Amino acid sequence: MQQNKYLRYLSLPAVFGLERTKEILKVNPTAVPQRKEPEFVTLFVFDYNADSVEERKIQKLEECLHFKHNNRITWINMDGLRKADVEELCAQYSVHALLMEDILSINQRPKMDEVDDRLFCLLNMLYYNSENNTVETEQLSIVLGQDFVLSFQEDAHRDVFDPIRNKLKVAKSNVRQRGADYLLYSMLDMVVDNYFLVMEKLGEQIELLEDEVARNSNTKALTKINQLRKELIVLKRNIAPVRELVNGIVRSESELLDDRTTKYFKDVYDHIVQAFDLSENYRDMMMSLQDLYINNVNLRMNEVMKIMAIVTCLLAPATVIGGIFGMNFESVPLLHNRWGFFISVGLMLLIPIWMLRVFKRRGWFNDRL
Amino acid sequence: MQQNKYLRYLSLPAVFGLERTKEILKVNPTAVPQRKEPEFVTLFVFDYNADSVEERKIQKLEECLHFKHNNRITWINMDGLRKADVEELCAQYSVHALLMEDILSINQRPKMDEVDDRLFCLLNMLYYNSENNTVETEQLSIVLGQDFVLSFQEDAHRDVFDPIRNKLKVAKSNVRQRGADYLLYSMLDMVVDNYFLVMEKLGEQIELLEDEVARNSNTKALTKINQLRKELIVLKRNIAPVRELVNGIVRSESELLDDRTTKYFKDVYDHIVQAFDLSENYRDMMMSLQDLYINNVNLRMNEVMKIMAIVTCLLAPATVIGGIFGMNFESVPLLHNRWGFFISVGLMLLIPIWMLRVFKRRGWFNDRL
Amino acid sequence: MQQNKYLRYLSLPAVFGLERTKEILKVNPTAVPQRKEPEFVTLFVFDYNADSVEERKIQKLEECLHFKHNNRITWINMDGLRKADVEELCAQYSVHALLMEDILSINQRPKMDEVDDRLFCLLNMLYYNSENNTVETEQLSIVLGQDFVLSFQEDAHRDVFDPIRNKLKVAKSNVRQRGADYLLYSMLDMVVDNYFLVMEKLGEQIELLEDEVARNSNTKALTKINQLRKELIVLKRNIAPVRELVNGIVRSESELLDDRTTKYFKDVYDHIVQAFDLSENYRDMMMSLQDLYINNVNLRMNEVMKIMAIVTCLLAPATVIGGIFGMNFESVPLLHNRWGFFISVGLMLLIPIWMLRVFKRRGWFNDRL
Amino acid sequence: MQQNKYLRYLSLPAVFGLERTKEILKVNPTAVPQRKEPEFVTLFVFDYNADSVEERKIQKLEECLHFKHNNRITWINMDGLRKADVEELCAQYSVHALLMEDILSINQRPKMDEVDDRLFCLLNMLYYNSENNTVETEQLSIVLGQDFVLSFQEDAHRDVFDPIRNKLKVAKSNVRQRGADYLLYSMLDMVVDNYFLVMEKLGEQIELLEDEVARNSNTKALTKINQLRKELIVLKRNIAPVRELVNGIVRSESELLDDRTTKYFKDVYDHIVQAFDLSENYRDMMMSLQDLYINNVNLRMNEVMKIMAIVTCLLAPATVIGGIFGMNFESVPLLHNRWGFFISVGLMLLIPIWMLRVFKRRGWFNDRL
Amino acid sequence: MQQNKYLRYLSLPAVFGLERTKEILKVNPTAVPQRKEPEFVTLFVFDYNADSVEERKIQKLEECLHFKHNNRITWINMDGLRKADVEELCAQYSVHALLMEDILSINQRPKMDEVDDRLFCLLNMLYYNSENNTVETEQLSIVLGQDFVLSFQEDAHRDVFDPIRNKLKVAKSNVRQRGADYLLYSMLDMVVDNYFLVMEKLGEQIELLEDEVARNSNTKALTKINQLRKELIVLKRNIAPVRELVNGIVRSESELLDDRTTKYFKDVYDHIVQAFDLSENYRDMMMSLQDLYINNVNLRMNEVMKIMAIVTCLLAPATVIGGIFGMNFESVPLLHNRWGFFISVGLMLLIPIWMLRVFKRRGWFNDRL
Repeated sequence: MQQNKYLRYLSLPAVFGLERTKEILKVNPTAVPQRKEPEFVTLFVFDYNADSVEERKIQKLEECLHFKHNNRITWINMDGLRKADVEELCAQYSVHALLMEDILSINQRPKMDEVDDRLFCLLNMLYYNSENNTVETEQLSIVLGQDFVLSFQEDAHRDVFDPIRNKLKVAKSNVRQRGADYLLYSMLDMVVDNYFLVMEKLGEQIELLEDEVARNSNTKALTKINQLRKELIVLKRNIAPVRELVNGIVRSESELLDDRTTKYFKDVYDHIVQAFDLSENYRDMMMSLQDLYINNVNLRMNEVMKIMAIVTCLLAPATVIGGIFGMNFESVPLLHNRWGFFISVGLMLLIPIWMLRVFKRRGWFNDRL
Repeated sequence: MQQNKYLRYLSLPAVFGLERTKEILKVNPTAVPQRKEPEFVTLFVFDYNADSVEERKIQKLEECLHFKHNNRITWINMDGLRKADVEELCAQYSVHALLMEDILSINQRPKMDEVDDRLFCLLNMLYYNSENNTVETEQLSIVLGQDFVLSFQEDAHRDVFDPIRNKLKVAKSNVRQRGADYLLYSMLDMVVDNYFLVMEKLGEQIELLEDEVARNSNTKALTKINQLRKELIVLKRNIAPVRELVNGIVRSESELLDDRTTKYFKDVYDHIVQAFDLSENYRDMMMSLQDLYINNVNLRMNEVMKIMAIVTCLLAPATVIGGIFGMNFESVPLLHNRWGFFISVGLMLLIPIWMLRVFKRRGWFNDRL
Repeated sequence: MQQNKYLRYLSLPAVFGLERTKEILKVNPTAVPQRKEPEFVTLFVFDYNADSVEERKIQKLEECLHFKHNNRITWINMDGLRKADVEELCAQYSVHALLMEDILSINQRPKMDEVDDRLFCLLNMLYYNSENNTVETEQLSIVLGQDFVLSFQEDAHRDVFDPIRNKLKVAKSNVRQRGADYLLYSMLDMVVDNYFLVMEKLGEQIELLEDEVARNSNTKALTKINQLRKELIVLKRNIAPVRELVNGIVRSESELLDDRTTKYFKDVYDHIVQAFDLSENYRDMMMSLQDLYINNVNLRMNEVMKIMAIVTCLLAPATVIGGIFGMNFESVPLLHNRWGFFISVGLMLLIPIWMLRVFKRRGWFNDRL
Repeated sequence: MQQNKYLRYLSLPAVFGLERTKEILKVNPTAVPQRKEPEFVTLFVFDYNADSVEERKIQKLEECLHFKHNNRITWINMDGLRKADVEELCAQYSVHALLMEDILSINQRPKMDEVDDRLFCLLNMLYYNSENNTVETEQLSIVLGQDFVLSFQEDAHRDVFDPIRNKLKVAKSNVRQRGADYLLYSMLDMVVDNYFLVMEKLGEQIELLEDEVARNSNTKALTKINQLRKELIVLKRNIAPVRELVNGIVRSESELLDDRTTKYFKDVYDHIVQAFDLSENYRDMMMSLQDLYINNVNLRMNEVMKIMAIVTCLLAPATVIGGIFGMNFESVPLLHNRWGFFISVGLMLLIPIWMLRVFKRRGWFNDRL
Repeated sequence: MQQNKYLRYLSLPAVFGLERTKEILKVNPTAVPQRKEPEFVTLFVFDYNADSVEERKIQKLEECLHFKHNNRITWINMDGLRKADVEELCAQYSVHALLMEDILSINQRPKMDEVDDRLFCLLNMLYYNSENNTVETEQLSIVLGQDFVLSFQEDAHRDVFDPIRNKLKVAKSNVRQRGADYLLYSMLDMVVDNYFLVMEKLGEQIELLEDEVARNSNTKALTKINQLRKELIVLKRNIAPVRELVNGIVRSESELLDDRTTKYFKDVYDHIVQAFDLSENYRDMMMSLQDLYINNVNLRMNEVMKIMAIVTCLLAPATVIGGIFGMNFESVPLLHNRWGFFISVGLMLLIPIWMLRVFKRRGWFNDRL
């Protein structure tokens, strides 16, 4: 009943939740991105064909020119989005100005576009932040050309492409045997696979929450339910348009995509559809969790009411009998009887016992109480 | 009111439910399947045409080669998915690597695919586990070629194909007269028929639950409602994509499918649509069951409130009158009157009786009380 | 407050509802129909053209052969589905084995099919059972050929085709002037018209229920709401697929359907769409009925709470004042005052009256109380 | 607390609502219309071209023949649907028997049809009955031919076409310059415009209701919410199919419709879509109104509970202290103390005051109380 | 507990909300617009090509003629919709009469139309009124011709086109290099960008409200929730049809639209789709906010109930024991015992303490209390 405890339970998580709301709601893709220009930009280049592979970390953009028109496939990954550098690289590989703007934008809806013989994909990689249980997003732009793939991301410290890098070093791997479109497929596949890892983490949170709600349905649990609902909004907002994106690639008739690769994209499509279905299941789970919560709160209320009813019943005969024999009338029966006191106290005990038995017969105690 | 009873009712089923939640939520089709490699693999072969049938249990995969290009239809069923064996069999029958991966995967969404003149179906057989009332799934992959059907399942101990095996032994049966596509139809038909058996069992559970909720709406019933809702999620997750799968076959223009067989697949389609409709009905039923539960809880609460109101009304005059005549004023009317005591006790009885009559007239007792 | 009354109100209707649940949930179209073979089968034949009509009740199936290839239109109606007879008739009129199976099945979803120059319709006739307020279904199969219509039903005692039989006897009626497709239209039209009669009965039930809920919202009313919701499920389950069925006929390019008849089927389509819309309206009505019910229960609870609040307020001053002047202190003011008793009793009366006025001003009594 | 008041509030509006339910639910378009044959039928004819216009009220149907094949456009409006007259007029203008049946039917779903070079529209005019706040419908059938328009309505006393009649008298008006299809457009436009008037009235009702609910959420308000929901069902049932109707005309390739008129029908389509959107908004508004109602009821309940809690807290110390010093023990401390009485009464006052302050600090009084 | 405070909290915001309801519900696009004719009309003309630009504010409409057929692109913006002026301008640029009516109408649903080689867009600019937290709309009509754009708005004091005006003055800007269709794109882009600004403001309101609801869920918060829901209706009503509008332009095959511009319109389409998705997210947020509100109200109710239960338990033993020893029987045990009084008072204290411990063990205090 301390004020402090009350504050700790209620206010802190709520305030925390509010900041998350701000992040989720502040979405304006058309504003000039107030992205903090990164201090430096890292460029990693994989230049490969079936026979050999060259892996280079380059400092100056001009070095990229080196890899053009060499009949090998080039994958240039840019970590950190400095406006000048993005523009220069896009110019080198003749990427349309509109796409360049999309690459530099923030909070874009995932989408796929074909402009001037370039296939463009913009989507978010998702990471699960275990510390404050949020789903973090990082924007990823991929441009596919005839014999190159450009990828742009903001944060150099983590991405989901390490398995691809490892495979690129293996001469017999599929990705080395095939064209740039297969590299695009591998990247999308990795991103979508990572969605499932994030969903697994969210699934664990739902389990834990279900446990907590079943055990003791307090305000903390409700705060967590509301938080998880927000994360599911983030999840769905990212998965739903990726479904369209991959479907767009499957149905695309671009010459950049080899017919043999289509079935691989179809595989990615199957996975993203499953991810979407699963996110729907999650939403249903959350709904029934909230029902469970409300029900538990009601049940506990019910229990409190029953305790009060029982105590009220206990009070009733005592009050009435005590009132009767406490009146100051001159002549009251039993008052001078030797057993009078014991008879009245006996009634005070017997009547509530009888009442409790009636309640029991009516099934009041079948439930939790 | 014992702690133990309380625990038995609430905690145990909840914990049980949690494990089920874990199973339902942990779905990642893209992870490398951590499937325990089975120790041995069983291969059953049916090799037949209209004239004769040969049934063989074979030990070594090489023996399968024996059945190729013999102008008869071959059905090879593999129980237990050992990676090496699946790969070898797929290689023998030129099944694409992607399909092979799907066969070995776990938790895949049901789907249908046509790759390189092979028609591939992946779906789940459903079984109802009567012990803990869950819907169990077992993944089934079927590959249809020109004159063969390959089927892959994990568990040798049960499948739904025994009726087909019996019909294959009968020379005049439809399945013997027709091609491999009719065998595929028979298998899908069996799987979908089995869905109805599972739904019948779930239907029985819903009936029992409706009975239980109507009788006494305690926490146990709510736990069961939540469990059943989870099983319905499993059901729907499996049925909905099978609808697309069968529809895909009906609309397919693959040369593997004889025009005469299409109407049989249409029949399967009718059934799976009906199964889907029924699962929707089940969901509606569960919703109205939950409404019933909540309503019953509320009604019982209402009853408790009425008891309290009645007892409160009983107390009211006794307390007031007892208080009045219990005051120690020097001159109180009636105190020295001979009938004073009886008049006051009479009022204590008459006023609550009158109150109860007023309540009755207002219709408080039309309801359950 | 009697146990019996309680049982009569709650348990009986619930148990009754359970049996209905069983009927609604037990739907397995693929099981081998455990239909009780009827003892005898009745065949009614109408053989007609614009000039003359022959009506015959025949005993042996062979007599049907008599009506083939006579350049007249033949309508054979079979009441009672004995497997052998259905098979023989279907063989005579070359109906595909799959359709024959559908005719003999039970609990099929309404559907329409075109197989081998035969147009097949399977749907349910609905009847309203006024005794236990349920919607009964009876399966009807119709096969349309070039110059014949076969219809199959289970129960001879009732069908909805008497108006057609009457019109067939009238030489100038439309049905006599036109082909077999017009006869099919007439039959579908009759079946759909009958749906409206059933819906009218259900509509009356909804009205009565609305009246009952408004008057006294007891458990009985809730049981009825739940029952009606089940019947609406039956209704919708039958109407929704019939919409597809009729639409299928309208869009069919079968040569069995004369172009001039299409507009008649379109008319049936308009009606079935309206029936479907209406069933949606019914569902909305039921929803708002349930809201009304829950609200009434809450309002009554509210009323109980107010009574308790008023009585509590009445008790408050009496208890306090009685307690004060009932204490055995040596020197208590007013105790020896002549008007002391009346002053204290006056306060006991005036304070609750003032309290009630405050409540009144706050609008507590604007409501039902 | 009077029975009468209670009855006036609850029963009367409910009974009123029931009759409305009956009207809304009793919809059977296929029944033989039990329409009371009107005693007389009124025919108004407008016969016009760009140069001149003739307006005639005619008594005998034969006079209509006069207007055929005169190279002018003829609009015949029939008020009152006498079967014989409708049939004769339809015969004169070769309207198909099915359309004729639709004209004579009641409670039809709005629809559009093209039969035998006649374009047929059936829809409802809506009127708002301000007395009992219901939406009244009147069926309107329009038949468009090459150079004529036939319109059929039941009630002569009101329609929405007066503005058209006025424009027809003006030589330079659009409707005079153009063909019969433009007249059809004008009529549909008028009908749809009138929907907005009805919706405006309903909108006012929603406003008033919102005011009433915010002020005092009593049962009367709930009854009105339920009534308005019914009227919205009527509204939507009429608007939704009219959308299809107009869309059907826009996409129609009938030769009766001049290409130049299409854009006018598109304009009507825009309006009916907007009407539909608006009716959805209305539904949302009603939903949030009902939420507001329920919330207000709950808040008032909350208030009652708080009053009770406060009074209970006020009682608590008085009862305990009064009980302690009212006991008849021989030796009780303070009893003989001079200030004993005042100390105990002081505690009776101070403890509840302290309790109220605790409640206040917990934020109980931030709310309405 | 003052009446005034009560009134300030409840009535004022409600009345305010009502006026807003009126504005939202009063939508009749077909009524003759009772728009107040503006006193004067302002015309701004930009006449430009890649080489030069001329910016003019003109007084007389005839001056516009000056800009026709000069092989430059002309943008005429009219602020203030005086009927005569609109008609004259439309006549000059041969805009169809129907479009002209749309320009002059009010409360139109956003739409796009192609009539007589003119592409017409009607949509609303949205502004956020920070004072009373409403979303204001202003109708904008744009007519695109071969080498001109006409735009019509009501209010001269604000529009969203200043960035375009600035770019027009820069010779190398895209808009100067391209045709009139690019100008149309720029205008739509600006309008849609502005939607995001409005949504950001609404998002902030949702955040603040979430904070307020979490802190203290009083009636004021509910009123604000209802207000915000209304604004979201306004938002969605404007965004949803603009999606269709832009999609219509993307798919249009009008010769007015250069193929190179299509990708720009596709970009606008991506943004408007995102805006729509976001508005859906907002709705979900509002739903869960309302759930939170209701839950908080319930929790506080729960708390009140617990306080009452505790006080009731405190009262119980005191009342019973006080009643027992307050009875006036002749022989009562302990009465003459020296420690009698202290034993009884001790029990009065010990029993409630024990009760509270039982409640604590049952987990009543895990929650907020």
